[in-house]
Amino acid sequence: MSLAKAITLIESNHPTDRQEAEDLINSLLNHTGNSIRIGISGVPGVGKSTFIEQLGKTMIDSGKKIAVLAVDPTSPSSSGSILADKTRMPILSSSSQAYIRPSPAGRTLGGVTNTTRESILVCEAAEFDVIIVETVGVGQSETAVKSMTDCFLLLTMAGGGDELQGIKRGIMEMADMIIINKADGDNIKPSQLASRMYKNVLHLTPKDPSEWPTTVKTCSSLNGDGITDVWKSINRFHEIARENGRFYKNRQSQKLQWLEDSLEQTLIDLVRQSKSTKAMFNEMEDLVISNTVTPSSAVRRFLSKVEINLLPGTNK
Amino acid sequence: MSLAKAITLIESNHPTDRQEAEDLINSLLNHTGNSIRIGISGVPGVGKSTFIEQLGKTMIDSGKKIAVLAVDPTSPSSSGSILADKTRMPILSSSSQAYIRPSPAGRTLGGVTNTTRESILVCEAAEFDVIIVETVGVGQSETAVKSMTDCFLLLTMAGGGDELQGIKRGIMEMADMIIINKADGDNIKPSQLASRMYKNVLHLTPKDPSEWPTTVKTCSSLNGDGITDVWKSINRFHEIARENGRFYKNRQSQKLQWLEDSLEQTLIDLVRQSKSTKAMFNEMEDLVISNTVTPSSAVRRFLSKVEINLLPGTNK
Repeated sequence: MSLAKAITLIESNHPTDRQEAEDLINSLLNHTGNSIRIGISGVPGVGKSTFIEQLGKTMIDSGKKIAVLAVDPTSPSSSGSILADKTRMPILSSSSQAYIRPSPAGRTLGGVTNTTRESILVCEAAEFDVIIVETVGVGQSETAVKSMTDCFLLLTMAGGGDELQGIKRGIMEMADMIIINKADGDNIKPSQLASRMYKNVLHLTPKDPSEWPTTVKTCSSLNGDGITDVWKSINRFHEIARENGRFYKNRQSQKLQWLEDSLEQTLIDLVRQSKSTKAMFNEMEDLVISNTVTPSSAVRRFLSKVEINLLPGTNK
Repeated sequence: MSLAKAITLIESNHPTDRQEAEDLINSLLNHTGNSIRIGISGVPGVGKSTFIEQLGKTMIDSGKKIAVLAVDPTSPSSSGSILADKTRMPILSSSSQAYIRPSPAGRTLGGVTNTTRESILVCEAAEFDVIIVETVGVGQSETAVKSMTDCFLLLTMAGGGDELQGIKRGIMEMADMIIINKADGDNIKPSQLASRMYKNVLHLTPKDPSEWPTTVKTCSSLNGDGITDVWKSINRFHEIARENGRFYKNRQSQKLQWLEDSLEQTLIDLVRQSKSTKAMFNEMEDLVISNTVTPSSAVRRFLSKVEINLLPGTNK
């Protein structure tokens, strides 16, 4: 089965497709886990596609196969930039060493997150060495991408029309690397200034000394300056994370997070759809809408009346 | 019972306290819902506390009682700014017409969110006219605050050391009002420029014509310029939202969201703790860690073996 076909299967909502997709991925699991998974976040206009195009080209030149996936659960009307990714990455689009997959359409964040996590595994089984997962970086999608990658890059830029936003300390703490893009021409000096400023701010952030320190780099996706350096840093990050064990710990806790996310989603669907509990769920909604009890109190009442049991004969 | 004592009860993890807290809130529900709930997000350094101090003072001067709550699930080491809120809002702290409550310590985002939602109700029953919920605006906490307020203000600033971040289109779409703070002295012109730029960008964003258009304001929390105007805009927003019905629709869907969040959290806790399913949950974790099946597949297997039932005699 081709990679594209496998991912289409993963993205399908049809129950038999779902079963087939899970069987497929489970059969491939022994061949997964061998890539570097890189998350890239950056707001529209920061040059994300061009950066990925340049970075991807550098990776291919060093002998790597790369896959680019996207997590962007926004409405079709505002997600044009992601849909157009393929045309905005002409080199990667035409390379046999690269695979680009836009975010699946019409999905909730939870749906996109699950699909992307599964797609990463399939890409790894197809022997891609680097998986890039990009997001436009709005609220929860940034957290979702962080939860499925080893190394998180925040793409930003200096100067121009962007003197508008304070430093997002929480996002910076999430980032393993801050890349100041568009450091070319008249923008080189402002970019260097911005770099220094970020470094100063990061200096204040306490860090475990055995850990990778958040790194600030400038680059130009226009002329390629600094891109090789970013790729070197990613490799160095990867080395250190494997040495200090953070790499494995991180992947393990990500798997457990995925388990928890799936279980939450599935349990709530089950309560909503199960013959015996559906009516009670509707009753809860009514109690809440009519202001009779708070939502958390409605849930407590509901759960005092239900039990979750193993089916007979399945007890281990 | 005093308001502070009621909120302490709400924040308690002890089961009997929990029951007492829910009974208390349910008994008050008929007296809730009558405030304007305002969410305020802004990164550290943007002047959030001073802004809330000034805005709160203006509200008190117009005869309102205001409560300030916080959603900030970060670690104690980095949440100093929130803990220090009381000292950073001297006027509100000493006013009988204001109540300030820092974010509860040592909680997950889900925990803080539930506690804050309940605290809002208790403050409303205590006849506070305006509830301000502030957050430092990192990823999911911004979404959480949006999910519990009527009107969402994004506090930002121009110039100075903040030429670093692109325009966060998704956050802007979340905001009902963008407030450019620190528009004083040499910073007035850059603030006006930033205001114009935001307006231009927002102009591109499609909007339902019957809806409130995202509004950009400049103000100075230092000298108070523009603060009254912000308060007028909030009132106007509130009027329009009540007229076009968005206010009620929004509050209703927020209640259902809260129900869903509570149910998810409680169900997963139940599966983890229930005698019959706990072992299976551990088994799922083992399968996932050992790379035997994917997390989503483990959940599917698990759920094929369990059933959620109404307890005998509770069937409606």
